Amino acid sequence: MKELVEAIRREGVGIGTDVVKVDSFLNHRIDVALSTSMGQEIHRYFQNKTVDVILTVEASGIAVALTTAQAFGNIPVVFAKKGDHINVGHDVYTADVYSFTHQKMNTIRVSRKYLPEKSRILIVDDFLANGEAIEGLLSIARQARCEVVGAAVCVEKGFQDGGKRLRAEGLDVLSLSTVQAIEDGKIILSE
Amino acid sequence: MKELVEAIRREGVGIGTDVVKVDSFLNHRIDVALSTSMGQEIHRYFQNKTVDVILTVEASGIAVALTTAQAFGNIPVVFAKKGDHINVGHDVYTADVYSFTHQKMNTIRVSRKYLPEKSRILIVDDFLANGEAIEGLLSIARQARCEVVGAAVCVEKGFQDGGKRLRAEGLDVLSLSTVQAIEDGKIILSE
Repeated sequence: MKELVEAIRREGVGIGTDVVKVDSFLNHRIDVALSTSMGQEIHRYFQNKTVDVILTVEASGIAVALTTAQAFGNIPVVFAKKGDHINVGHDVYTADVYSFTHQKMNTIRVSRKYLPEKSRILIVDDFLANGEAIEGLLSIARQARCEVVGAAVCVEKGFQDGGKRLRAEGLDVLSLSTVQAIEDGKIILSE
Repeated sequence: MKELVEAIRREGVGIGTDVVKVDSFLNHRIDVALSTSMGQEIHRYFQNKTVDVILTVEASGIAVALTTAQAFGNIPVVFAKKGDHINVGHDVYTADVYSFTHQKMNTIRVSRKYLPEKSRILIVDDFLANGEAIEGLLSIARQARCEVVGAAVCVEKGFQDGGKRLRAEGLDVLSLSTVQAIEDGKIILSE
């Protein structure tokens, strides 16, 4: 997606060989026009699928999940919560997700009542690297006996294996941008 | 706000004397049409103010912060991060915020570069109870030498003192709904 690729070229910062910092427009400060366009782009790609609910993980996935849901005509968003939430209750689906960013295991939780059986789910998230978060959401969808129609992410790290593995499993994965490598602080993007 | 009050009446759950559970439409599952309307309502109230940036805290504040930013013509959202984020870096403003929901102290952080001096900030959050989160954001705004034009929240717990204290300090606080009490599981709302 052109606007996003341009934003990454203009503002993204590569650190080491695997950190892509895009917090000026994606996951700390949010470029709201870009976020809205990304939601519309995700809708364009999946518009022939019936989607009942957008599923994401707090916190950075929420903005683009919301704009995607708007583009689908205001379908609901459900965001999985991380850690122990006294407000979530016990009637939940859970999955363990390792966060490379925070270098720790998180348990993500979704209340059972917000994923009725047979719901058609579109997973949306900001990043796809090793695929841990999306695997966790897929696990929750399986537990809920829901159908996952696909997954959409803003930035795929093409040099990590999550995208490859998920596609090999048959998941329809849309990446709005793909980082091929980080070299000397420069982010190399696929065309 | 009528739609929100109706949603709380229909779906909100009161627990004990102080927990208002609205996770079916506000902070776990998101009613996207309602979220969009809330953003528009907040914009209507503050439309005569110049606002450069919407400031909120992850995670539940992000959705309504985003729809408010859309209503203001796609101004940026900045969300304060909780806890230690290796991605945030050290060049940050911080504030300590006690979370009654999670019964722990959180340090919230905002990168200095996303709050340029003299920015006019509108604070948006899902809940206002003891006012801890908003006080933390006000502290960050002061550190950044920014002006806070007001604060908007979806649900104010009128029986806790945050709203009263913030208004006494001169802050223009808009509450889209106000819970007066919780009695026998019933949520009593102001008209």
